[in-house]
Amino acid sequence: MNGAESLVRTLVHGGVDVCFTNPGTSEMHFVAALDRVEGMRCVLGLFEGVVTGAADGYFRMKGTPASTLLHLGPGLANGLANLHNAKKASSGIVNIVGQHATYHIDYNAPLTSDIEGLARPMSAWVRTSPDAQSVARDGAAAIAAAKSAPPQIATLILPADTAWGEADGIAEVPQDTQRPSYSPHAVEAAARVLRSGEPTLLLLTGGALTEHGLELAARIAGKTGCRVMGQTYNPRMARGRGRYAIERIPYVIEAALPILKDFRHIVLVEANDPVAFFAYPNKPSLLKPDGCEVHRMTEGGENSTAALEALAGALGAKAADAQPQTHVEIARPSGALTHASIAQAIAMAIPDNAIVIDESITTGRGFFPPTAAAAPHDWLQNMGGSIGFSPPVAVGAAVACPDRKVICLVGDGSAMYTLQALWTQARENLDVTTVVFANRKYQILRGEFDGVGAGEPGQRAQDMLSLDRPNLDWVSLARGMGVPARAVTSADELNKALDAGVAGSGPNLIEVQM
Amino acid sequence: MNGAESLVRTLVHGGVDVCFTNPGTSEMHFVAALDRVEGMRCVLGLFEGVVTGAADGYFRMKGTPASTLLHLGPGLANGLANLHNAKKASSGIVNIVGQHATYHIDYNAPLTSDIEGLARPMSAWVRTSPDAQSVARDGAAAIAAAKSAPPQIATLILPADTAWGEADGIAEVPQDTQRPSYSPHAVEAAARVLRSGEPTLLLLTGGALTEHGLELAARIAGKTGCRVMGQTYNPRMARGRGRYAIERIPYVIEAALPILKDFRHIVLVEANDPVAFFAYPNKPSLLKPDGCEVHRMTEGGENSTAALEALAGALGAKAADAQPQTHVEIARPSGALTHASIAQAIAMAIPDNAIVIDESITTGRGFFPPTAAAAPHDWLQNMGGSIGFSPPVAVGAAVACPDRKVICLVGDGSAMYTLQALWTQARENLDVTTVVFANRKYQILRGEFDGVGAGEPGQRAQDMLSLDRPNLDWVSLARGMGVPARAVTSADELNKALDAGVAGSGPNLIEVQM
Repeated sequence: MNGAESLVRTLVHGGVDVCFTNPGTSEMHFVAALDRVEGMRCVLGLFEGVVTGAADGYFRMKGTPASTLLHLGPGLANGLANLHNAKKASSGIVNIVGQHATYHIDYNAPLTSDIEGLARPMSAWVRTSPDAQSVARDGAAAIAAAKSAPPQIATLILPADTAWGEADGIAEVPQDTQRPSYSPHAVEAAARVLRSGEPTLLLLTGGALTEHGLELAARIAGKTGCRVMGQTYNPRMARGRGRYAIERIPYVIEAALPILKDFRHIVLVEANDPVAFFAYPNKPSLLKPDGCEVHRMTEGGENSTAALEALAGALGAKAADAQPQTHVEIARPSGALTHASIAQAIAMAIPDNAIVIDESITTGRGFFPPTAAAAPHDWLQNMGGSIGFSPPVAVGAAVACPDRKVICLVGDGSAMYTLQALWTQARENLDVTTVVFANRKYQILRGEFDGVGAGEPGQRAQDMLSLDRPNLDWVSLARGMGVPARAVTSADELNKALDAGVAGSGPNLIEVQM
Repeated sequence: MNGAESLVRTLVHGGVDVCFTNPGTSEMHFVAALDRVEGMRCVLGLFEGVVTGAADGYFRMKGTPASTLLHLGPGLANGLANLHNAKKASSGIVNIVGQHATYHIDYNAPLTSDIEGLARPMSAWVRTSPDAQSVARDGAAAIAAAKSAPPQIATLILPADTAWGEADGIAEVPQDTQRPSYSPHAVEAAARVLRSGEPTLLLLTGGALTEHGLELAARIAGKTGCRVMGQTYNPRMARGRGRYAIERIPYVIEAALPILKDFRHIVLVEANDPVAFFAYPNKPSLLKPDGCEVHRMTEGGENSTAALEALAGALGAKAADAQPQTHVEIARPSGALTHASIAQAIAMAIPDNAIVIDESITTGRGFFPPTAAAAPHDWLQNMGGSIGFSPPVAVGAAVACPDRKVICLVGDGSAMYTLQALWTQARENLDVTTVVFANRKYQILRGEFDGVGAGEPGQRAQDMLSLDRPNLDWVSLARGMGVPARAVTSADELNKALDAGVAGSGPNLIEVQM
């Protein structure tokens, strides 16, 4: 077999059996190997940001890496923004990037570029295979890197001659060395803080945000009086009826500071010390108050649920200590489209076991409270802040979980970066309902313009923050890619469109005209 | 004034008065400065590949750099593929990339990334401004770098506090040091080769491909019997009736080798030693025959027209030595859409002084001969091979030359990477007729699959090379972005659609259903 086939076989053997791909000439031997190797599902994207974002969504739902296939440096470059988001979410991904044949690189043909240099800012592991015999072993090492704790972006660069040259066969993925799942000392330190009775915030993200992790945190809060919150953004959170709802630290600094101002301690469960998303003149970067002590209990890659179990045990926190949930009222909204009626409509529509991808930006700032009472679901957010995240992540989540409904909530500005994802949803008949909030602005930037002290935007500045003249017609855009779509202008129409979208089993899109 | 305003004023003062932009929070002070500074035209793109490709097209037609405004590392990353193409075209561009405030970077907020690391592979000049007082001077240095010979990609990274901090004022762009416009020794060496009478190829690109440069080359060919050709891809070539037409080295190796096999010498006028676009098993990378000597007369940044004048003078080649042009017959085609009838229709439709952006890939391989007899026009090609080049480049060319018709010839696969460019064409009412060749395949990859020795693609491989299931509907996609569009299925319909498109003065799109 050739190097490409040895790599495809190594990937499948190593449990990496989905490849999101946008190939070119230098990847043709990899594509050809797909015809000879059983067990690799290949999903085509028509832009590389779709490919890498899909791999992120796949990992978040499946917990195991997918691969990507990208064409040389520019193909990788087009995928970097969503690799950035994936890296910040600690999603494991195995990128396969084609390269010119080793002997061809020095001729500086048009597509020649510094692929390793492009890969490094978003990859924890980068390697260029030197020859066909090394490809399988390098692929296995890439899988191991992607599966490490915390998971990582691994980028394997494959010169064309290493793909077509004769290889020896598959390679085994190196066994993960055993590592402690959490630090008992860190748990004991957290227990001491919580026993002190001083005002303490238990700040969660990552693996702590499972149904069980949230229940453990609720016990601890009930027993000790601490407050439990999530980060502003989290890779995945178990939510809905019967689960313990937590609030997140607000995005807006002026809203975050009053919430945090009285804490003497913050115990971090995978979370980061809270910082402002952006810097603003005369506003702090660090959101904790002066004198607040920060204690790390777990970091990414550790077993936060086990650590929370140990902490609850150390504190004697029992199931009965968890406070009953506050009842949240949701009702089918009627009348005009407002942020509140949209939130209610979505909360009513989320079906049992749905996956919600949230890139609703300004429209969605109030989505969290009503959806706490929706049917049980997972809620995924953008960890890296690079917009154009959610339509591709919806692709990956739907491929990972074909039996679950995916609901993608996205602003019109964000959706435009990666609208090509709709075509892949149609090609693969993925069960995704996309809801585009068409306010025809980069609405968040209207606020940020003021937030950075720039005052009121004049006409020229406003033109750079608006998506109007012409308005985008999302119904046409979706249909152009084979996805049925409708536009809504009232809460009643939104209810109906969501009902129909959720009732279907293929992709569909709703343009919410605000 | 603050740092952002000092930069905008320095750009305008330095002749950089167009900014293609997709801003975010960290760039809000730059956007705010637009309201206070006269003379900067800002053009919004809804994806960064539109922004950077537009800057490439602008430079090619205007000969002077535009600026871009990009949001942090991921915004730059989304623009890198078209920066790659621009770099390979030696287009000068001043990128302004926002960054977190200097004191905020270490907190590792979600959008934090290694921006300099991302910039370097595609930029010849990279600098991060350290403080507000440095921003104007750094901006001036970026302009100088972009305008150097050869022109370059310059990337200036602007931490938010350097944008909002107090600055001193504008800075002057350092004067370009005088440099020799060409090497008389290299011209004399080329003259010796051409006097020898041995079979010689005069291979042109860059500044040699003006109407005058081509006429000089025709004189030299007439006088010495050498052959004149262009590179396979060229940034801009003067073409059409009354201009000397040259052939290009074919893309396909099997077609290029027989053409080159008998040359004893190749004289390079800015061109590169001919190499294969990709490597293929058992095919050469270098296309010149064994024993062929390569002589460089000019390199990028030198004055190739002046060098050709000197060469013609040294050889005693006069205007009368140029051979009369071969007559090329074009006629309005009828009947079925074929590669030949499409080529004829386009040749008939090109209006006087048009700008043709060619990313027609496989469909367009035969476009060159008939269009040699079209009305005079400029022909722009993709120099870096990263597809998704032409719709953004059409934006920039139309902004640079508002009085000229732009015709963008693009394959459906290519157009999907940067279809957001259509919205900018509508927003700015740019005079662009886009012709999408909808063969619903990455047709070039069908050929490359065989070319790399992978044989016939099976079903799984074919799925990765096809854009069908569902078919893209380009009429809907264009309308969704405010661009009127029609689909054609015969040569007669294509003629009519081209006539209507050329007669209009705003953007329009024709889907050629093949």
